[in-house]
Amino acid sequence: MTFRVHVRVIPRPGLLDPQGQAVEHALGSLGFTGVQQVRVGKAIELGIEAADAAAAESAARRMCERFLANPVTEDFVVAVEA
Amino acid sequence: MTFRVHVRVIPRPGLLDPQGQAVEHALGSLGFTGVQQVRVGKAIELGIEAADAAAAESAARRMCERFLANPVTEDFVVAVEA
Repeated sequence: MTFRVHVRVIPRPGLLDPQGQAVEHALGSLGFTGVQQVRVGKAIELGIEAADAAAAESAARRMCERFLANPVTEDFVVAVEA
Repeated sequence: MTFRVHVRVIPRPGLLDPQGQAVEHALGSLGFTGVQQVRVGKAIELGIEAADAAAAESAARRMCERFLANPVTEDFVVAVEA
């Protein structure tokens, strides 16, 4: 069975995120007020063949630890689509 | 009140996504089998001051329509953290 898996990879809190700062400033310039602490990372969607949702999530976590995320600078969140 | 909002911006289905193809091939090379239809986009987290969660979501959707996503080539999903 193929599961659709959503992964978010985001710079760790406290680390400099120039892209997030640029987006925050641009939103302010466009008139969006009250926006703060913007972080920009990667959103990855994958189709993963697995026996069940738990196995798909586990595989995605291994992919993050091995390749999709930088363990020093980034956090990741994995969600399997229902 | 400040709400933490998660935005995913992903290339539309059917549009070429070279970054997604590169990730798919790299995962295969690393021994991850059964991975398909990989799409890579942006994950954006924002703190938004708003009266309630619905207002924060609405503001984030306007930001996506105006600036964060390309309406021709990208889809976006907005979720307000509980």
